[in-house]
Parts: sequence; C-alpha cells; structure tokens
Amino acid sequence: MKADYTLYLVTDRRAMSAETLEAAVEQALLGGCTMVQLRETGADERTFYDSACAVKKITDCYGVPLIINNSVAIALAAGAAGVHIGQRDLPAETARRLIGPDMLLGVSASSVQEALRAQADGADYIGVGAVFPTNTKKDAPRVSWDCLEEIRRAVRIPIVAIGGISMDNIAQFAGRGINGAAVVSAVIAQPDIRRAAAALREEMTKVLLL
Amino acid sequence: MKADYTLYLVTDRRAMSAETLEAAVEQALLGGCTMVQLRETGADERTFYDSACAVKKITDCYGVPLIINNSVAIALAAGAAGVHIGQRDLPAETARRLIGPDMLLGVSASSVQEALRAQADGADYIGVGAVFPTNTKKDAPRVSWDCLEEIRRAVRIPIVAIGGISMDNIAQFAGRGINGAAVVSAVIAQPDIRRAAAALREEMTKVLLL
Repeated sequence: MKADYTLYLVTDRRAMSAETLEAAVEQALLGGCTMVQLRETGADERTFYDSACAVKKITDCYGVPLIINNSVAIALAAGAAGVHIGQRDLPAETARRLIGPDMLLGVSASSVQEALRAQADGADYIGVGAVFPTNTKKDAPRVSWDCLEEIRRAVRIPIVAIGGISMDNIAQFAGRGINGAAVVSAVIAQPDIRRAAAALREEMTKVLLL
Repeated sequence: MKADYTLYLVTDRRAMSAETLEAAVEQALLGGCTMVQLRETGADERTFYDSACAVKKITDCYGVPLIINNSVAIALAAGAAGVHIGQRDLPAETARRLIGPDMLLGVSASSVQEALRAQADGADYIGVGAVFPTNTKKDAPRVSWDCLEEIRRAVRIPIVAIGGISMDNIAQFAGRGINGAAVVSAVIAQPDIRRAAAALREEMTKVLLL
C-alpha cells in the first residue's frame, strides 16, 4: 500500500489536550496529518479495540490510513490499514504473515541492523528514533544523526523519524532523506491541535523538498 | 475441534515450582493434564510468542491442545489449538472471526448473561470462576454454586470450572455437570508437579463419572 508519511501522528492519551481522542485526531487531520498511529499503552484489549473502531471512523472520513501500535489482532479486527511493531513485539516476519501482503507493516528500528532486518522481514516502512529527547516514551533508545544517515543509506524503504520532533527542530531534517516525521506531543498536547498540525505539515512539506 | 477438558492446566510463571516453564508443562502432561493454557501476564509480545513456540513443542509431543491466553495474534502466529479470552479482551465474536471456525475459542464467564453471550458469539467452551478463592488471579469475580448450576442449565457448550481448585475441594464438583477443572497452583506450584497432576486427574475422572 502506498502511503504518505509526511506528518505521521502517534496518539498518546496521557499527553492529550482535547477532551476525547476522536476530537484530537479529527483536529490533527484537519490540520494536515497524513497518517495516524493509535497507541494505547497500558489499555486492555477491549478498550484498545473500541478505541480503534472509534478512531477508524474519523480516519476513514478523511481518507487517512490508521495504523495500530503493537497489536496485530486489533489491526485485523478493526480493519485498520496496518500495524506498527517494536523490537519487543511479534517478529516482523510473523506479523507480516498474519496481516498478509496488503496491510501496512511499520517496524521501529534504532540501528542499521534492526533497519535491515525489518526491511528483509517485510516492513513497508521503519520508524527511526528517538532522534530528539522525548517525554512520551522515556525508554526509547536515542539515534544520532550519523546513525540516521547510515540507516538511510542502508535501506530503500521509507523512513519516518520519531522522538521529540517539534517546530523547534523539524527543519533539521532537511536534506537527510527521510520520508516523514512522526509527532506526538507537538500535535496532540497543543492547545490548538489543528493549528499545530498545520504548521508542522507546512514545515515538513518544505523539508521533504530540500 | 473436540477437546478433553478434564484437567486443564493454566500456567503462571510467578507460581511455578519447576526451573523452566517447559519442564513444568512436561511434568504436568506426564501427570495427565489434558489441556494447557499458556498465560503470560505482563510479558511483552515477543517473550510471550517465544514462550508459546517453546511450550507448543512440548504439548505437540504429548498430543495435548495448547490454548493461548488473551492474544489472538500469538495463538495464530504460534499455530496454537486455540485462544482463551476474558471479558476485557477482544469481543468473542471478533476473536472467532479472526481465528476462523476450526480453532478452539474459550471465554471466561462469571454470570449466566456472559455465558449465553459467549455461546452465541461462537465460544467452544466457557471458563467459569472463580469457584473458590484464588491467589493467582486476585481480581477474579467469585461464582457461587447456584450461579454455576444456573450457567450449566443455560448453556450447552462445555464448562471448565476455575479458581482455587485443589485436591481439598475438587470432589465438590461431583454431579454438577461441568466438563473439566482448570488448575494453576494446585499443579504448577507443587514440589512434584507430575504427581500432583496425576492425583487431580484421577479425582477429576471420578467426578466426571458421577
């Protein structure tokens, strides 16, 4: 599946400024987010599934792919566009086997080895980070600019940078060959989610042209 | 799939007496457990999946079905015989849709309403409990004898009783129309797992004849 990774929203209820997750996602989509990953850390399966179904109604309205963090079963059950897995989730090749060839598979990678492995195992894209310090995922390993460049040279699949990306630093991606930026707090924790997303989308579109 | 629910082992690493889970399961099977449910509360997906693959090698050797607690994806990925879900996991009808008609689907139920719903949603059997106080799942609701009898009258699918079942109380199931007893600590926490399982199996076989 072809996807536009330009501004990739990752949700986080703990960091949310809007009253409901659906409202936050809708504002982010109105602002120009091109993809949504639903991350429900710590929620039980039923809550996560119900949330996936509710958010999918919004993403479907805007024609934007919904990716489910971690859970292949919920991605399949909710009819999501894909699933994003980390290094401690199911092996990527196993996830690919379960979701079939058409659903999107994203894999987190923070080294060249992990990136190459993800590509070989059938990932459609890799999430690389944390490129900047982040409060929303404190256990995330850090990825240096050198490492990001090495990964870019090593794999041919799209790269989405993640980790502490905001208006203060997004311009630093110019010329680095990434395909998109994943944002959490820089969108979902802002008082005006739509405006925050629109500003980041504009900036990121410029970055991708450089 | 036809299954023998007589003595249904549910694993719990925290309660384990053996050095490895594989060793504990093998001893339990040698003692006569007829089914195994792998429960890995709190483990990450990769650890759970690796554990499922390792335990499946043992259950396959003994021709005993392996059921995966909670995770449809791991059940599918590991090629398990089935999945067991609770009331806060994926809806049973959704789980059934994902696993297809042939894999076993177990659903926890602690009321007539939940039991009937599970049956309607495609459960192969229900786990009913906690029938006795239990330390391995402290948040489990209690089910009275009256409620168990009401459930037995209400559904036609097999019932596996669970919760604090041991040699001290297993004889109390005589004549109650259940199809098996699920045990955790009464097998897996015992110094001689094989002997503990054999004694429970013998007792439960008598109970099922009454």
